[in-house]
Amino acid sequence: MLAEVGPVRDEPVIALDAMGGDHAPREPVRGAVVAARRLGVRVALVGRPDAIEPELARWGERPPGLEVVPAAEVIGMDEEPARAAWRKRDSSIAVGLRLLKENRAHAFVSAGNTGAVMAAAIMYLGRVRGMERPTLAALMPIGRPLTVLLDVGANADVKPHYLVQWAQMAAAYLESVWKLERPRVGLLNIGEEETKGNALAQEAHRLLKASGLNFVGNVEGKDITRGVADVIVTDGFTGNVVIKTMEGMIDLVKRMAREALLGRSYHALAVPLLLPAVPFLALAGGVLAPAVRDVLRRTSWREYGAGPLLGVDGLVFVAHGRSDARAIYSSLRVAREAARSGMLDALRRLAPAPRVGVPAPPEG
Amino acid sequence: MLAEVGPVRDEPVIALDAMGGDHAPREPVRGAVVAARRLGVRVALVGRPDAIEPELARWGERPPGLEVVPAAEVIGMDEEPARAAWRKRDSSIAVGLRLLKENRAHAFVSAGNTGAVMAAAIMYLGRVRGMERPTLAALMPIGRPLTVLLDVGANADVKPHYLVQWAQMAAAYLESVWKLERPRVGLLNIGEEETKGNALAQEAHRLLKASGLNFVGNVEGKDITRGVADVIVTDGFTGNVVIKTMEGMIDLVKRMAREALLGRSYHALAVPLLLPAVPFLALAGGVLAPAVRDVLRRTSWREYGAGPLLGVDGLVFVAHGRSDARAIYSSLRVAREAARSGMLDALRRLAPAPRVGVPAPPEG
Repeated sequence: MLAEVGPVRDEPVIALDAMGGDHAPREPVRGAVVAARRLGVRVALVGRPDAIEPELARWGERPPGLEVVPAAEVIGMDEEPARAAWRKRDSSIAVGLRLLKENRAHAFVSAGNTGAVMAAAIMYLGRVRGMERPTLAALMPIGRPLTVLLDVGANADVKPHYLVQWAQMAAAYLESVWKLERPRVGLLNIGEEETKGNALAQEAHRLLKASGLNFVGNVEGKDITRGVADVIVTDGFTGNVVIKTMEGMIDLVKRMAREALLGRSYHALAVPLLLPAVPFLALAGGVLAPAVRDVLRRTSWREYGAGPLLGVDGLVFVAHGRSDARAIYSSLRVAREAARSGMLDALRRLAPAPRVGVPAPPEG
Repeated sequence: MLAEVGPVRDEPVIALDAMGGDHAPREPVRGAVVAARRLGVRVALVGRPDAIEPELARWGERPPGLEVVPAAEVIGMDEEPARAAWRKRDSSIAVGLRLLKENRAHAFVSAGNTGAVMAAAIMYLGRVRGMERPTLAALMPIGRPLTVLLDVGANADVKPHYLVQWAQMAAAYLESVWKLERPRVGLLNIGEEETKGNALAQEAHRLLKASGLNFVGNVEGKDITRGVADVIVTDGFTGNVVIKTMEGMIDLVKRMAREALLGRSYHALAVPLLLPAVPFLALAGGVLAPAVRDVLRRTSWREYGAGPLLGVDGLVFVAHGRSDARAIYSSLRVAREAARSGMLDALRRLAPAPRVGVPAPPEG
């Protein structure tokens, strides 16, 4: 068992759900090995030792700082979240979260069942005072220096005042960790005017305006990637569709490039012969290739890593269910930065959100 | 005034709102001139002659088939839609729609105020029997041969059974115009299982399953660009956020390419000297440039053009408010194809949708 850890001094310990995600335990184990070797991250791999050890053995000598913490049960991706969290007390998710609670780890990362992670986190860690619903955020390296989009899938049906509490937490995170003064908060909506949008967006607009936050108004889908707000808040249904639409666009670019490469490979091979075209094509390659790489870095979850579950009393990060070793590596990096930064203290210092009544929707 | 037109024989007449959109009348006029010259489209430019004629004069000799139909008023992009539609009986939108009603044009295209176009279309043309709410669709050239995403912004707050009616119209369009047998209908949602999503999506899932349509289940954001369904149905808030998120991703790729070009132009100029790198860069350029172009063609409204307003009794197309001449050109092309295809007859033949009761949302 891991020794008790104090406040982060040297290198934080990150508990990683080795059984979570579509490619577990292979990809989590591989991501942990790479992170431990390259970054010196200390990782506690939580899960069934008989599944983890053979995967670890594939990667040669075990890096120092990597250890295995046994957990006998696994929560499946499709299990009913609340029930699974309640029943499986010895799941990798439950054991990992208890490591946090018992001060044996500084942060927990899982690519497993999002709903189960949220339910178990509330159960074992509790909520940050005043925050009614924990929310899942995506941290995208766009803007100054990043854009926090939330909720991206923890709450499909929401009340307008949740959006205010979520914006408060995201703003507190940017202020304390990134030293950003009065982060700009935007509301994801379908037009710039405050009368635009559905009933939820209209009411959330009114509440955000009165919240004391640095509310810059509505932000449209096309502006998410433009860094016009530091925090963009929306319901978990819309937010989840947004990040997955981005994922789809990235996949489309990659797929088209692959098809172009296969379908036109004879053209491409002929390129060096087509002398007059070479400077132009080389220019296109020299410009487009880094541009596409840059877009990936800023908008792909494989690169920007796991998102924090804001509102639970501990550093919990949820990675994409399809996470490969690259995504796990990015997620461990993000969790380690958060553990070093004092992010949790900033959230705990948040004054309880004012209890905002939810008036009836406007007539007509 | 235009003569009365019968059923489409040779070349349909498309009424174009010359005053609608952020760049009117310049870009609509330019788009119409190019479409008339290149495609031989017959266009009725509707709007203030004193604004249209000088723009027309910029492009040399007027192409045959282009004429100006006077309309004294203009509805602004930010005007309250229903009121503006009701009061401004001589707006370019009202006059254009009346050309349809009076059989003086076969289709109407506007990049103006979407809400006003919808309100005026209901007022002047009426609804297709059985369809409670007209819906705006995006026709993306993805899949076999295209993916119809709807609603993309006409209805922010919806009832679950609207989604069924919209799916029926989109399916009828694909069956009649594209000869697609039993088009696959998907519901935009945040997971594959039928219990996923918000209350609206869960209820819509149940209704679609019982609808007799070829319902293939939930479709996630990442699948929109993969052609997994021919029709993808959602509420107008989510759909609008989706197409604008796609727009943002496209803008991001372009912006990064531009920054790479400016910031590294000295590298690029040095490329022809860096002989060993040239074949690789040329390959990258030869593969990536067409791939990015292909993605644009499939996902950018500039290329795929205006979307049909399904559910009103006439061929009405709404183009993006930011439309430039290129987008107007694409929109006129799409409207002309629709007019030639008998799309409206297919919608009129739709049996009234079964009146589906909306049960109370599930407890808990």
